[in-house]
Amino acid sequence: MSAAQEPRARTAPALALPGRPCSAAAALHVVGEKWALLAVREIFFGNHRFEAIARNTGAPRDRLAARLRSLEQAGVVERRPYNERPPRYEYHLTESGRDLAPVIRALLDWGDRWVLEDRPVVMIHEPAVPTGHEGSHGDTDAHAHELDAAWICRTCGEEVVMNTLTVDVRAPGWDRSGPRAPGPAGD
Amino acid sequence: MSAAQEPRARTAPALALPGRPCSAAAALHVVGEKWALLAVREIFFGNHRFEAIARNTGAPRDRLAARLRSLEQAGVVERRPYNERPPRYEYHLTESGRDLAPVIRALLDWGDRWVLEDRPVVMIHEPAVPTGHEGSHGDTDAHAHELDAAWICRTCGEEVVMNTLTVDVRAPGWDRSGPRAPGPAGD
Repeated sequence: MSAAQEPRARTAPALALPGRPCSAAAALHVVGEKWALLAVREIFFGNHRFEAIARNTGAPRDRLAARLRSLEQAGVVERRPYNERPPRYEYHLTESGRDLAPVIRALLDWGDRWVLEDRPVVMIHEPAVPTGHEGSHGDTDAHAHELDAAWICRTCGEEVVMNTLTVDVRAPGWDRSGPRAPGPAGD
Repeated sequence: MSAAQEPRARTAPALALPGRPCSAAAALHVVGEKWALLAVREIFFGNHRFEAIARNTGAPRDRLAARLRSLEQAGVVERRPYNERPPRYEYHLTESGRDLAPVIRALLDWGDRWVLEDRPVVMIHEPAVPTGHEGSHGDTDAHAHELDAAWICRTCGEEVVMNTLTVDVRAPGWDRSGPRAPGPAGD
């Protein structure tokens, strides 16, 4: 994996967060503050400059600037200079930032199903054309299409539906119901 | 879809939110406030009572109570009485709340890859055994297993990788770069 070359964000050691040790809580610690994921969305959409990100998210400028600094410190975005005098920077997603696409897509899906009635943003899937396949068939129309994603378990090949999911809590001292009492049962 | 029987949360008309019309922004408006998704996580884990949710998230009690009220108003959780005197309630996920599992799972995945080094919580997949299949083979060991999910596009059958995704902005007056200027090009 090329991910090995980039350092982990690792800004949130499990022990420093309140509550259950959990990677979702750790992820929210890094990207869960208001405006952070919407800033990532805009950069994912190709809008790299502060003015565009502020306009398209509607975020207050000072809060957006603080979020972008946090995201940069966490290794989710990086600044690249595009002008020397005066110094001006563009924001780009790092590999870990690009890896937030499934989070944004899951939020889009949920909002499409449960909040908004129209679908203001649709994800488009444009798979790489296999080598030697270009132009050999009349299938270019089918190349870029609306993403209609299913979630398939590689182990069993079945589509994952919600009522077939549960969790295994591996954090020492915790189980699904909470922290394990060391001595006589409390709570 | 049985979803048709339950009302949409629909607490966030697109026009009332700042910035780009977007279902991810609408979703974050409903579930993006601090502690909301962690409360949903705990209920998903089977912890239905306020005390357990507060302990396992580490959320301040007053803020957690406010979040649970918002989530109830948005149709994501529902309260069910479990005691009459004094009146006591348990929190359960509605269909829209259960439908947040992909959001939580995407956050877990990202946190596992980019923030924490161990994996304190692992999702387990336990697909329904096909009718007439029970006990007929020696494959019960393979029944419940760690979820190893791939994201497959139903239209083309390909696994979805991040650099094959783009977006189509359908909100009137907007495109990927932002709001369209109605007259002479402005910013």
